[in-house]
Amino acid sequence: MSTDIVGAPRPRPDTPAKVRGATRYLADRPMRGLLHARLVLAQRAHARIVAVDGAAALAVPGVVAVFAAEDLPLKGEGSDRLSRPLARSEVVFAGEPVALVVARTPQAAVDGAELVSVRLQALPSVVDAEAAMVAASPLVRVELAEEGDRTGSMDAQTHAGVGGGGDVSIDAEVLSENVTGRYRYREGDALSALGRSAVTREGTFSTAWIHQGYLEPQACTAWVDADDTLVIETSTQSLFTARSEIAKALGLPQRRVRAIGTPLGGGFGGKWPLFDTLAAAAAWKLRRPVRLAVTRSEDFAAANPGQPLGMTIRISADADGRFTRLGARIVADAGAYEEGSAESLGGVLIAGPYAWPSFDIKAYGVRTNRFGVGAYRAPTAPQTCFALETLIDELAAALHMDPIDLRRRNLVAEGGAMVDGETWTAHGAAEVLDALEASATWRDRASTGAAVAEPDEGVGVALGYWPGATNAAAAACKMSADGSVQVMTGVADMSGVAGGFQAIVADALGVSPDVVQIVTLDSDGAPSSPGSGGSTITYSAGRAIRRAAEEVGKRLLEAAALQLEIAVEDLELFEGTVRPRGTPEKAIPLAKLVRANARAGREPIEGQGRAEVPSLAPSVSGHVVRVRVDRDTGAVTVLADHVVQDVGRVLNAALVEGQQHGAAAQGIGWATMERLVHDGNGQLLTGTFLDYAMPRAEDVGTLATTSVEVPAPDGPLGAKGIGEAPVIAGAAAVANAIAAATGVRMRELPMTRPRVWRALNGDAG
Amino acid sequence: MSTDIVGAPRPRPDTPAKVRGATRYLADRPMRGLLHARLVLAQRAHARIVAVDGAAALAVPGVVAVFAAEDLPLKGEGSDRLSRPLARSEVVFAGEPVALVVARTPQAAVDGAELVSVRLQALPSVVDAEAAMVAASPLVRVELAEEGDRTGSMDAQTHAGVGGGGDVSIDAEVLSENVTGRYRYREGDALSALGRSAVTREGTFSTAWIHQGYLEPQACTAWVDADDTLVIETSTQSLFTARSEIAKALGLPQRRVRAIGTPLGGGFGGKWPLFDTLAAAAAWKLRRPVRLAVTRSEDFAAANPGQPLGMTIRISADADGRFTRLGARIVADAGAYEEGSAESLGGVLIAGPYAWPSFDIKAYGVRTNRFGVGAYRAPTAPQTCFALETLIDELAAALHMDPIDLRRRNLVAEGGAMVDGETWTAHGAAEVLDALEASATWRDRASTGAAVAEPDEGVGVALGYWPGATNAAAAACKMSADGSVQVMTGVADMSGVAGGFQAIVADALGVSPDVVQIVTLDSDGAPSSPGSGGSTITYSAGRAIRRAAEEVGKRLLEAAALQLEIAVEDLELFEGTVRPRGTPEKAIPLAKLVRANARAGREPIEGQGRAEVPSLAPSVSGHVVRVRVDRDTGAVTVLADHVVQDVGRVLNAALVEGQQHGAAAQGIGWATMERLVHDGNGQLLTGTFLDYAMPRAEDVGTLATTSVEVPAPDGPLGAKGIGEAPVIAGAAAVANAIAAATGVRMRELPMTRPRVWRALNGDAG
Repeated sequence: MSTDIVGAPRPRPDTPAKVRGATRYLADRPMRGLLHARLVLAQRAHARIVAVDGAAALAVPGVVAVFAAEDLPLKGEGSDRLSRPLARSEVVFAGEPVALVVARTPQAAVDGAELVSVRLQALPSVVDAEAAMVAASPLVRVELAEEGDRTGSMDAQTHAGVGGGGDVSIDAEVLSENVTGRYRYREGDALSALGRSAVTREGTFSTAWIHQGYLEPQACTAWVDADDTLVIETSTQSLFTARSEIAKALGLPQRRVRAIGTPLGGGFGGKWPLFDTLAAAAAWKLRRPVRLAVTRSEDFAAANPGQPLGMTIRISADADGRFTRLGARIVADAGAYEEGSAESLGGVLIAGPYAWPSFDIKAYGVRTNRFGVGAYRAPTAPQTCFALETLIDELAAALHMDPIDLRRRNLVAEGGAMVDGETWTAHGAAEVLDALEASATWRDRASTGAAVAEPDEGVGVALGYWPGATNAAAAACKMSADGSVQVMTGVADMSGVAGGFQAIVADALGVSPDVVQIVTLDSDGAPSSPGSGGSTITYSAGRAIRRAAEEVGKRLLEAAALQLEIAVEDLELFEGTVRPRGTPEKAIPLAKLVRANARAGREPIEGQGRAEVPSLAPSVSGHVVRVRVDRDTGAVTVLADHVVQDVGRVLNAALVEGQQHGAAAQGIGWATMERLVHDGNGQLLTGTFLDYAMPRAEDVGTLATTSVEVPAPDGPLGAKGIGEAPVIAGAAAVANAIAAATGVRMRELPMTRPRVWRALNGDAG
Repeated sequence: MSTDIVGAPRPRPDTPAKVRGATRYLADRPMRGLLHARLVLAQRAHARIVAVDGAAALAVPGVVAVFAAEDLPLKGEGSDRLSRPLARSEVVFAGEPVALVVARTPQAAVDGAELVSVRLQALPSVVDAEAAMVAASPLVRVELAEEGDRTGSMDAQTHAGVGGGGDVSIDAEVLSENVTGRYRYREGDALSALGRSAVTREGTFSTAWIHQGYLEPQACTAWVDADDTLVIETSTQSLFTARSEIAKALGLPQRRVRAIGTPLGGGFGGKWPLFDTLAAAAAWKLRRPVRLAVTRSEDFAAANPGQPLGMTIRISADADGRFTRLGARIVADAGAYEEGSAESLGGVLIAGPYAWPSFDIKAYGVRTNRFGVGAYRAPTAPQTCFALETLIDELAAALHMDPIDLRRRNLVAEGGAMVDGETWTAHGAAEVLDALEASATWRDRASTGAAVAEPDEGVGVALGYWPGATNAAAAACKMSADGSVQVMTGVADMSGVAGGFQAIVADALGVSPDVVQIVTLDSDGAPSSPGSGGSTITYSAGRAIRRAAEEVGKRLLEAAALQLEIAVEDLELFEGTVRPRGTPEKAIPLAKLVRANARAGREPIEGQGRAEVPSLAPSVSGHVVRVRVDRDTGAVTVLADHVVQDVGRVLNAALVEGQQHGAAAQGIGWATMERLVHDGNGQLLTGTFLDYAMPRAEDVGTLATTSVEVPAPDGPLGAKGIGEAPVIAGAAAVANAIAAATGVRMRELPMTRPRVWRALNGDAG
């Protein structure tokens, strides 16, 4: 095996095509006889649908059909949102699709959509999650209550965490049916913990709805194939979810649905199937190809952004700086479609990578008349990290301790438990803190002997973690006669994971990554593969790929053993050859070996890898950030951001660094500018990139990255999933840096100019 | 396992789409920016190319490029014909492509092609294979001789068969360099064999060039993908051959070439890669998609039809009807591109399924200035069968023996050797003869006590065999959550083999064939799969599929064992469930089992099958045919044709019968009408379906079929490849029926009206 490949920086294999502009994204793909669909979006946040009238639209030349929910062959099975891609009797957020116009040209579809008359009867809308919790609150979804509310609060899951088994008080709370999730994690005795506590800090924090900001808006094309299969070509993170949800929504067996992935123009969690069942139902009904590629403003209004959390949190420590107790109440705005709401995860993550002898955490998911919730890179983690790490910094100040020392003192040990009882496997939290401490940005702060090196500049640190998703997976691997290796997977490559797969296979087979082809198949042909989310792919699918490659390696050695008449044990794979150990001059190039094997009529050299769900492999990551705050305007400028992350094992340094750079930029956006804003009636005020601010290159200061490597026991070569972790602590570090610069503690994300200005001028939050 | 599926008649899975006209063949597939290519064909059979001038063509609006051979990025590696898809310095058959015009519309390409000026300097053409063999003959390919003739007669392979090891006289024969293959199979002593012989019959036979007559002419589309891969979408029998030949021709590694198969509109052996390297080179040069879909007349002129054989054969038997000796000389017209020439196989097949104590068979392949040779269903088998079985009938008459009895007496036994030393595994020759004898068509003949039941009607019988092709193969198989099964293969489904695969998998997993999806992948993603030719697919690829399905079955049982806490041995797969033996009420549906397995986080239930090259599995097949001969016109009407075949195991009766029906029709065509005719200068006279006769429904009499089942030891469920065998004895049986009707022995195929009329009127042949 040649291992100098692993860790070396290499461009992701899809880079050249993207740089040349040759990559064909979904909306660029030609199709004969294609019909174009356009959404008609509801203008109210909550209303009864009185009538949808498509007559005027149908009169537009080129318009082929106008569909309301009842016109489509939807059985209503599967996911709540995907089973009702058009509102049925009730609109539950402004921007919800109520009709679909299908036309021969995109312009005819636009013209038709403008002429669809939607008569609505207003219902009271609820846009504040706390208000929605109250038993007397109007319902966010009346229709569901009428239907029996299969996902409503009556069925809400209640999880009592470790030590909380007997306490069901959270269920006994009298709350509105808008509350769809109630979770509680509890351990230890509050009174005794507080008795040991020397310092306590408390705060109430809130965050915003944030959009994933992918460059390519949501898009898919559906058609019925010659063999009567419903095919969906879709810009998705999860082929197999698209297949299963379409099958359920349309009442078809999975074998009659085929999902084909297209290159993702960004995803970040936002591209789980969303409009796929709608396009599929229209194509199934019309028996013609239908494309639904939404516009930017439709995507802002009707897609699935990340949810905000409201958090009240109290942490205590003894005089030595040992954490004694964590108390938290989290209210997650679950929007109108709460399937993506992750309050239970937020309840876990708010504990951070620390050991808490005592904790009591309540987490609620609450419906409001705003959007449906989607995932966005590390859902609930940056939000909870912002709250926790702000208070830890405050605790350090109160204890007159170094913020890094305080954190180090309280890190959870390997084998320790998360608040939901999951086990901490080996992790690099201590190594991450060491690297943060060694960072020039942090050292410069220290060398001045103060938190502020320049007037109104400050350096902050924060730490976070992502538990990582874990999935079963399969993969196949084969040798071709040119000595190249093909790896078959159904993974959507959202973040360049193919570059990591290449390293895994190259290492297993002693070949150059250049000759390793990652072949992404559709849902018919692909080995079972998880969706690309939650940092699961390199870790979970990479395991299956590693096994498939190792099986191929074994067969290569066996083939060479037959050919060279040398025992398998005496052979090794090295730089594209098999060679006897000690006699490199007898090396056989793999291409030659594969051809000889074929000539001899032996079994083709192929392998399959199947992997069960692995153990958790949490990735800890921290940021050190230097900011400058303009006291006149409240503007926060991030001057430097050093991201440190435990990645388990670097497979491809360029990909790891790319993830960390992107995370730094996103963290800065979330920290200082990004938010989707509704008015009090649930009307979206930020429906374009003119209104929704995202960071540009000039907003991102000097970036530095450090990867530490604490191998994941079940990871391929020790690698962990690395996608989510580096984004988590960004906003928290900025907040701590602002405090270092100004002494002001921010409680709300994003920390926009007006908010910072108000805080500086005595009006916090 | 539920085994009543195997053998049941079921429609092939691609039937509904074909019946509805929904199947999209290559030329129907839309592609943005597609350029259309048109061939410029040589008008002479043999000439020097003086100049190819595309200036006038380039002036046609819409014409993008005019390519001669030297304009294309061809490295000249790989197959002779595919490496020079345009003639270089020399035209070697009339119809050979000399230039390619590429235009934005098909019509512009046609207009351009008409304006390409090709200046040729005539060379002597050689169209008769016997004449071409003579040392003094002009060369068919001068350019090759100048290049060093890498495939010419100097390197001709010489195979001395069993017992002929020391005799190299065939190599010593002084012959023209047009002779590209010389084979000799020899055993026993001629003098002693002839000494034992009581009867000898001899004849000289000839056959015609015949076109495969696929409905869809040759077609492919090539383009360069975003990732700089050269992609070919092609109506081909062999994806992997397309990949490797394009890679060689263009000097690319295989991983940069991807071949995608399209539904075959007929193949019959004629659709191995042919124009693929040409379209690929043009697309590579232009970096734009290029489609080459030839017209019917171009296909007749420029494709790769089946070759004719000239045969002189002498057979002898002792007074008891035991064969004593076979002598044969075969001259195969190898055309101008001889790679498909199968004279060595013809030398083997001319012995039939009989034991010959003594034989001496010489076979030559000889270049002529006509076409390149392609495969056509059972290459050389119908031709050699026609010769041998005619003489066996004559021998039976001379011995006053029943023709079936004589054949039965001489059948080769299991374990016997073919003339090339290959071993006869278990075969059903005796069972086939029994079934032929039991056929109503044969019995009616017998019941009249004469060969002729009606005036000018006669019944003939003939027997033939196909050794079968054998290949290594791989396949993958997976369970989906709806209980359906996906089988991944790279096999091009030429003849409905997917229907047989369904039965193999359904039997292995105890599921309905309806839930078994055969997924055909491209060359990147597909498990290693043989090309679809030589009756290899069901036998060779079916083995790999069986193994993959069995692995899945094993995993299903293991998953159920965990779930039910019952030992694997006590469980069985039955009708879409796993159930404990003896307690069917505890059966778990597979869909449920697969979902539970996934929920439990276990390995996905998938399997891979890899199969080495199996033993030969010869299929013996015979025909009994009744004909009526119109003595006034020479017209032969086939009244009835009963095909009997040893298929090893019937997997799907509808598919088997379909093969046999098609074979009967093709056999009648070859027997009575099909031939490609050149004039003495090598100009094709039969370049359209107006000139080239093929049988219609009204030409095919009453068909009957019988399958006998002698399992192939290595076959999946005992199945053999069945594609070729049933066509072999058709023409021979018609010839014997004509003899039975008229007493006249035909020596030439096809037995057209004029030929039969002349034979009836004393001018044989």
